[in-house]
Amino acid sequence: MSLFEEVRVDEVPRTLRGAVARRDSLATRDWVGSRLARRDRAAEIADLTPSELADFAKMLDRQALTTLLTLLPPRDAAHVLDQLDVAAAAGILAALAPDDAVDVLQSAHSERLPEVLAAMEPAAAAKVRALVRWPPDTAGGRMTSAFVAIPPGLRADDAVASLRRVGGEAETISYVYVVGSDGQLHGVLSLRGLVSSHPDTPVGQFMETRLVSVSPLTDQEEAARLLVEHDLLAIPVVQDGRLLGVITADDIADVIEEETTEDFSRLGGSQPLDMPYLQASPTLLWRKRVLWLLALFVAEAYTGTVLRYFESDLKEAVALAFFVPLLIGTGGNVGSQIVTTLVRAMAVGGVRLADVVRVVRKEATTGLLLAAVLAIVAFGRALVLRVGYDVSTVVAVAIAAIVLWASFVGAVLPLLLRTLRVDPAVVSAPLITTLVDGTGLLIYFAIARLIL
Amino acid sequence: MSLFEEVRVDEVPRTLRGAVARRDSLATRDWVGSRLARRDRAAEIADLTPSELADFAKMLDRQALTTLLTLLPPRDAAHVLDQLDVAAAAGILAALAPDDAVDVLQSAHSERLPEVLAAMEPAAAAKVRALVRWPPDTAGGRMTSAFVAIPPGLRADDAVASLRRVGGEAETISYVYVVGSDGQLHGVLSLRGLVSSHPDTPVGQFMETRLVSVSPLTDQEEAARLLVEHDLLAIPVVQDGRLLGVITADDIADVIEEETTEDFSRLGGSQPLDMPYLQASPTLLWRKRVLWLLALFVAEAYTGTVLRYFESDLKEAVALAFFVPLLIGTGGNVGSQIVTTLVRAMAVGGVRLADVVRVVRKEATTGLLLAAVLAIVAFGRALVLRVGYDVSTVVAVAIAAIVLWASFVGAVLPLLLRTLRVDPAVVSAPLITTLVDGTGLLIYFAIARLIL
Repeated sequence: MSLFEEVRVDEVPRTLRGAVARRDSLATRDWVGSRLARRDRAAEIADLTPSELADFAKMLDRQALTTLLTLLPPRDAAHVLDQLDVAAAAGILAALAPDDAVDVLQSAHSERLPEVLAAMEPAAAAKVRALVRWPPDTAGGRMTSAFVAIPPGLRADDAVASLRRVGGEAETISYVYVVGSDGQLHGVLSLRGLVSSHPDTPVGQFMETRLVSVSPLTDQEEAARLLVEHDLLAIPVVQDGRLLGVITADDIADVIEEETTEDFSRLGGSQPLDMPYLQASPTLLWRKRVLWLLALFVAEAYTGTVLRYFESDLKEAVALAFFVPLLIGTGGNVGSQIVTTLVRAMAVGGVRLADVVRVVRKEATTGLLLAAVLAIVAFGRALVLRVGYDVSTVVAVAIAAIVLWASFVGAVLPLLLRTLRVDPAVVSAPLITTLVDGTGLLIYFAIARLIL
Repeated sequence: MSLFEEVRVDEVPRTLRGAVARRDSLATRDWVGSRLARRDRAAEIADLTPSELADFAKMLDRQALTTLLTLLPPRDAAHVLDQLDVAAAAGILAALAPDDAVDVLQSAHSERLPEVLAAMEPAAAAKVRALVRWPPDTAGGRMTSAFVAIPPGLRADDAVASLRRVGGEAETISYVYVVGSDGQLHGVLSLRGLVSSHPDTPVGQFMETRLVSVSPLTDQEEAARLLVEHDLLAIPVVQDGRLLGVITADDIADVIEEETTEDFSRLGGSQPLDMPYLQASPTLLWRKRVLWLLALFVAEAYTGTVLRYFESDLKEAVALAFFVPLLIGTGGNVGSQIVTTLVRAMAVGGVRLADVVRVVRKEATTGLLLAAVLAIVAFGRALVLRVGYDVSTVVAVAIAAIVLWASFVGAVLPLLLRTLRVDPAVVSAPLITTLVDGTGLLIYFAIARLIL
């Protein structure tokens, strides 16, 4: 075997379903070992029917089942767990990291929780109980109790020796926490600092005592922000000075991924799904989309009122109607470009409310440049449609005015919402399009009356 | 000082500009120490004029300047560097990690590059030269040469001892690479494995030889995907079996953040900015937006042709015009909801081309449910506008048809583009809106002719 060979996907069974159908327990175990780290795992597991999933779980030994449960999304893991009897479920949960066990238990049939906890080894059950009481979206809900703690007063080589003893069970050993006998957190050592220091140095001499920490009820997004800002590998969760657990960088990466996915959903004009797209049922998709669609429909219905108000103008110059979709569509496009850029810039921290003047000035200048180009193109397009110089002039002036108006609304609205403590990502492309549609029509017909 | 005190922002000067204006070198140094890890640093630095930035750099000692350059975006760091004389620039670059030095040099005035490299300490200059030849968006451009390599045949405690010696200069010590005298990569040890193992164990016994690696010309996004999929803390960059460098997880986090920001830009209908929003000039914003706006304008202009084609129908029943924005707006909203969700699901790996049938079936069912609701609401809205039962029926049937059509286009287009090797994120909300506008009008008037 070459030293530089990558893990090759084609060495393992092509489909999980095939292996399950053949009752090929060796192949299914291989699949767990080699395929589960890959991103397509969720889709393949989700493809299995409940009875196939049960067959699959039966073919795995306890170790493979534990691996499976660690790597599956909690919802799927819970589904596998629900197929097992209480003793088997308890055994496997005890082998998981406590925070993973909690995630799975919170998605499993809740009536089994007390039973499974009672069947678990008492020490493992206590760890799970300590975590399960925090809401899932908080630091407490994300933390693990599998960290390495050492008493103060050790020397560096003692600390390395205790790592050797207990490090295998910990979720991260990048940081070693110095905790007093009363559970109080005194400081933190990085594994890096520990390894680079002289073996005889007392840990107190090089531990960091100025700690960035969160409380268990801190929002998980706030914990993520702190970890990223301070370039940490883990963040301790502390209550009354006592160390309850730590959140590791890979858990934070999951939080950030979830949060970004939510921003995408909102920008597209729907509510976040809270689960992978492929697993969402049409009725769930419908529920997450229909309210925004109806709200936008009602807001957009205003365009009908505007058009009816200008009915006589339309009858006189029906050519004006030709340009309605083009004008309001372009306004919506300009608005979409701005809000998506701005919402993202606010999410990664580059833009704050204090920047409102800079943002408006920047977008006003950009809008003027865009308006000039689009007015010329629109004038040409109108002439090509042979609607005469007057209507063409109206169209050109209107598009310039609408582009500027859309720039202003797009620049101000996300920042305004942040001030009102509303997530700026609700200013979706559809919302800004809808807002600009009705007002854009008013601008168009006002200009038409002025010129024609 | 309490043990659990967080770094407090209000202890340091409120604004950098204030401190620079007062020539308060102590305050500016404090600012570097305590503020630079925070996300708002880029905005505050960007606020400084070139002469203020030069004053600021002059007040810092070499260590603070080095910290500053590490933490600033490369473009800003290059700007600071351009203020320094060649000897000072060379000294500071030599103190940076080689990959950071390369990032800064690539953004700095390129004519100074040979001069600065010549003034640098030869060993540091050689490391920079080895990195500077790879394009910035490749694995080679992202990698660092500051990794820990040990010869094969060491024991675990020898390995720990070499870590103690050289670990301080390395960018990551999470992995220790076992490299032969010919530069060939034999395997990798995790720091965790090293610390948990018995001191006498030869490293060959517990090193991992099945390596996931990339070549220097691998796209940075591909490297990011591999690191995330295999849950690694760093990925080695290998050419002909020789270890050239490693890419660490925090560099990958930057790649993922950039890539997500690009997806946002594209979904909003503009080209990615390649720099923080606040630093982008209006002419840059204009350049990144105008091409898509013009393309969408041309595509949308088709709506004018459709409307002129149906001019006689419009004249006969001008009421039909009232619903044009509402119908095509709703179609665009439905399309936006789908494409943003789908593009994100494709980016995080949940949805692939093979899922096209599942996606279409899911979206068709969801679309039917949405169409039913919206048709009822649209019928009611039309009645309220007193346009009669006939036109109201046309509007209701048309909105149902348009919602289904938008669902189909939104579900298929991103997957189709992926097949054509086009980034699916170019199917922006504006693009789908534009596509649905013209075709939606055709559907509307076809139904009108049928019914009226």
